[in-house]
Amino acid sequence: MVDRCAQFRSLHHADTPLLLPNAWDHASASLLLAAGFEAVGTTSLGVAAAAGKPDAESATLTETLALAGTLAALPCPVTVDIEGGFGRVADVVGRLAALGVAGVNIEDGRPGGTLADPAELRDSIRVIKETAPDLFVNARTDAFWLYTPDPLATALGRAAIYRDAGADGVFVPGVAEAADIAELTALGAPVNVLFLPGRHTVAELGDLGVRRVSMGSLLYRAALAAGVATAKAVRDNGEIPTGIPSYEDLRI
Amino acid sequence: MVDRCAQFRSLHHADTPLLLPNAWDHASASLLLAAGFEAVGTTSLGVAAAAGKPDAESATLTETLALAGTLAALPCPVTVDIEGGFGRVADVVGRLAALGVAGVNIEDGRPGGTLADPAELRDSIRVIKETAPDLFVNARTDAFWLYTPDPLATALGRAAIYRDAGADGVFVPGVAEAADIAELTALGAPVNVLFLPGRHTVAELGDLGVRRVSMGSLLYRAALAAGVATAKAVRDNGEIPTGIPSYEDLRI
Repeated sequence: MVDRCAQFRSLHHADTPLLLPNAWDHASASLLLAAGFEAVGTTSLGVAAAAGKPDAESATLTETLALAGTLAALPCPVTVDIEGGFGRVADVVGRLAALGVAGVNIEDGRPGGTLADPAELRDSIRVIKETAPDLFVNARTDAFWLYTPDPLATALGRAAIYRDAGADGVFVPGVAEAADIAELTALGAPVNVLFLPGRHTVAELGDLGVRRVSMGSLLYRAALAAGVATAKAVRDNGEIPTGIPSYEDLRI
Repeated sequence: MVDRCAQFRSLHHADTPLLLPNAWDHASASLLLAAGFEAVGTTSLGVAAAAGKPDAESATLTETLALAGTLAALPCPVTVDIEGGFGRVADVVGRLAALGVAGVNIEDGRPGGTLADPAELRDSIRVIKETAPDLFVNARTDAFWLYTPDPLATALGRAAIYRDAGADGVFVPGVAEAADIAELTALGAPVNVLFLPGRHTVAELGDLGVRRVSMGSLLYRAALAAGVATAKAVRDNGEIPTGIPSYEDLRI
C-alpha cells in the first residue's frame, strides 16, 4: 500500500514546484495522470457548476465526497477542495482520509465575498490535524482573491497564523506580482499559487520559491468551452477539433 | 408549466432535424442552451467515464438519476440515456418522468458487444409507454454500432418492431451511408442518427429524412481533450485556449 500522504507531501519539496491540475471527474483525472501529472486536485467551482449549485456556500458536500471517492481509486495522490469545511470539518476530513485522499484545501473566504476571522480557519486547521494528522492541509487565504484592501499584509498575517496552527502549506490564489509572491514564500511554509494565464510561467513561480502551482477551475472551464464549441461546429458545419479521445480510451 | 414532453416531441417534426447536443453536467447543458440549442440529451458513456464505472452495464443508475435531476431544472426538454433500462425500466422511467424529463433513450446493445433479443426491447418500450405515456421513447438499435453482420437488415427489422411497440423514434448510431439512412427513414418513425465527424453534415442528414441528429459522447470527449491540452499548455508554457468562460459565467 503506497502512502499517498507521504508521496504527496514530498512533491512539495522537489526541485521544481508541484504543478497540480484540478480534475472534475474520474476521466479527466485519469487522462491528466496519463499526460504525466503526478497528483490531482479538485475544484469546488467545478463541483458546484457541474451540479447546478452555488460554490463556496457549503452546498456540495455530497458531490464533493462522491468525486473524492472516485478519484481516490486512481494510482496517485488526490487533494480535495473542501471550501470552508462544510461546517463540519472533522466529519468531512475523517471521511476523506478513510477514502484514501492525501490532502485538503480549506479556505477563509466566505459567501458574499468576505473573509472569515482568521481564528476560524486556525481552529479548523487544528481540528483537521487532530482528526487526520497525515493529510496535507493546504490553508487558503482569499485576501487577494476577494480584492480586500492591502491584500499582501492580510495574506502574510493569515499565512503565518495558519502555518503556526499546523497547516502544511498556504494557498494564496490571485497573487500575481513577483514581489508579493517573494514575500509570501519567505514565510517558510510551502506556498501554493494559482496559475494565472498570461501573468507568469511555472518556471518563474518556481524561481520565486513557490512550491505548488495549481490550476483551479481553468481546466474545467476550458473543457466546457471546447464542448460547446464542438457542438457549434457540428451545427454550423465548422471544423471539429482533433485529438479527441476515442470511446475505447474512456472505457473502464 | 410548459409541457416539456410535447415541446420535445414537436422538435422531431420541424423543417430541419433536431440537433441534439449531449451534456454531461449542469454547466455544460446550461452553456449549450445559451448557445441556442433547444434541448439536451445525456450520454451514458459520459456518465460512466465521469464516475469511473463501466458503460452499458447498468452500473450508473444513481449517477444517471442525479444528472437527470440537475438537468431537468433547466428551461428546456431533456432526454436521458438509460442504457438498456438498468434492469428495472418501469421504476427508472417513473422516476425520470417525476423529475420532469421529456424523453429517454433505451438500447438493445448488451455487455460484451451482443444484441439483445428484439422482444426484450419491445417489451421494455411497452412498459415505458404504460408507465409514462408522455415520455418520448427513442429506441436504439446497436446493429451498426456493434458491427453485426448485415446491419441494415437487422436495423430495419428491429426498428419496425420497436416502432410497432410504441417507440416514438428510432435511433441507429453508427449508420453512415446515405443509401442505408434513406432506407431507415422510409420506415416512418422519426429516425435519429449519431453525428459522425467527417462522414456527413446535419443538412445532408436532413435531406435524407433524418429527424434527429445527436452528438453522443463527442462533446464530452472534446471537453476532456481540451482540459488535458490546457494543463499541458500550462506545464509546457504553451498557448492557453481563448474563449474560456469566466467564474462569473458559471456562478449559480
